[in-house]
Amino acid sequence: MLLYSAPFAPNPRRVRIFLAEKALNVPMRDLDLAALGQKSEAFTKLNPLQRVPALVLDDGAVLTESVAICRFFERLHAEPPLFGSGAREEAFVEMWQRRVEFGLFGPVALAFRHSHPAMAKLERPQLPELAVLQRERAADFMRFIDAELAERPFLAGDAYTIADITAIVAMDMTKYGRVDIPSGLLNLENWRTRVSSRPSAKA
Amino acid sequence: MLLYSAPFAPNPRRVRIFLAEKALNVPMRDLDLAALGQKSEAFTKLNPLQRVPALVLDDGAVLTESVAICRFFERLHAEPPLFGSGAREEAFVEMWQRRVEFGLFGPVALAFRHSHPAMAKLERPQLPELAVLQRERAADFMRFIDAELAERPFLAGDAYTIADITAIVAMDMTKYGRVDIPSGLLNLENWRTRVSSRPSAKA
Repeated sequence: MLLYSAPFAPNPRRVRIFLAEKALNVPMRDLDLAALGQKSEAFTKLNPLQRVPALVLDDGAVLTESVAICRFFERLHAEPPLFGSGAREEAFVEMWQRRVEFGLFGPVALAFRHSHPAMAKLERPQLPELAVLQRERAADFMRFIDAELAERPFLAGDAYTIADITAIVAMDMTKYGRVDIPSGLLNLENWRTRVSSRPSAKA
Repeated sequence: MLLYSAPFAPNPRRVRIFLAEKALNVPMRDLDLAALGQKSEAFTKLNPLQRVPALVLDDGAVLTESVAICRFFERLHAEPPLFGSGAREEAFVEMWQRRVEFGLFGPVALAFRHSHPAMAKLERPQLPELAVLQRERAADFMRFIDAELAERPFLAGDAYTIADITAIVAMDMTKYGRVDIPSGLLNLENWRTRVSSRPSAKA
C-alpha cells in the first residue's frame, strides 16, 4: 500500500489526520504540487483526474477521493469509529461531514483557488467575484456551526469524527483563501482549540 | 418517518430513485420550491440550511443530505446493495459517487444555478462566467466516464450503484443548465439508455 500525499494540500491532510487518529502507519510519498507533480505522466496513469490523495493498493488498484480512502481504513480498522457506529449515528456523521464540505471546506477551497496567485496556473481563469461570494458563504456557515457547537463538543455529537477533520482542515485553510472568521464565535473558537490540540492535528 | 421532497429538484430525486431501487415506500411531502417553500419558517425549523431532501425520523430528529439519507436506508435495508458490499467495494463505490458529484453533478447544478432565470432569486448574484466554466468541466468529465464505461456496464463496476443514481440525475439536469453533451460518447449514451430504462428512473 502506498499513499500519495502532498504537504500543505488540504485533501491529503484530511487522510493523514484520519490515519493519525487511527494510529495507522501507511507508507506515503509526497508529490510536489508547486512543480505540478500531480500532472506528471506517471501520476496521471494512477489517477487520471490528477489529484491527491491517491491510495495504491497492493494489487495495483488505485483508490482516490479523501473520504473514500478514509472509509476504506474505517472498514479495515473499526476503532476508534470516526464515521459513527450503527445506522443512525453513521447517517448523522455523514450529514455533518457533507454539510461541512458544502458549507465550509468547499467554499474556503474555492476562495483560495480563485484568489491566490499560486493557483493562477491551475484555476484558469480565476474569478475574483466567486472568491468574494464563497467567503461570505463560509462565514455564514461558521455562524451556523457556532450555534450548533453550543450544544455539543464536536460537530456530529459527543465524539470526534471525520466531520471535525474536514472542518479543522477547512478552518486552517481560511488564511490562504483570505476568509475572515467572524468575531465573537466563541463555541467555534473553543472547538477549534480543542481539535487543534489533538496530536493528529499536526499530521 | 416523513421525507420532504420536491418535484424537479435533483437532490430529492436521488433519494426517490434510491428508494425505488430498494422497493421502499416512505411517506413523502412535496415542498413548492418556486414559492420558496424551503425558506418557510416551519421548514427552516426542520432544516436551518433550507434545502430538500430532509427526512424527519419518528423521534423528530431530522436527517438531511441526500447521500446521508440514502446510506441510512442502505444500513436498514441492505438488499440490493447500492453502496457496494465489503470494505473494498464500498470504497470504490464511494470513490465513483464522489467523482461524479465533483465532476458532473456539481458542475451541472452550478451551470443551472448561475444561468437559469428561475434561479435568479436564489443565486445572487448569478455569475454567467462560472456557468460557462462549469459546462466545460462537465463535458470533460463526460469524456472521462465515456472511456471508463467501455470497460464495465455501470460506473463503479458490474452492479448499479448510487454512483449511477448521481450520474443519471446529473445527465437529466444538463438541459436545464444548458450543458452540451459532447457528441460521439457512445458508451455514455448506452449507459444512459440502460439506466434510464430502469423503472426507478421515473421516480
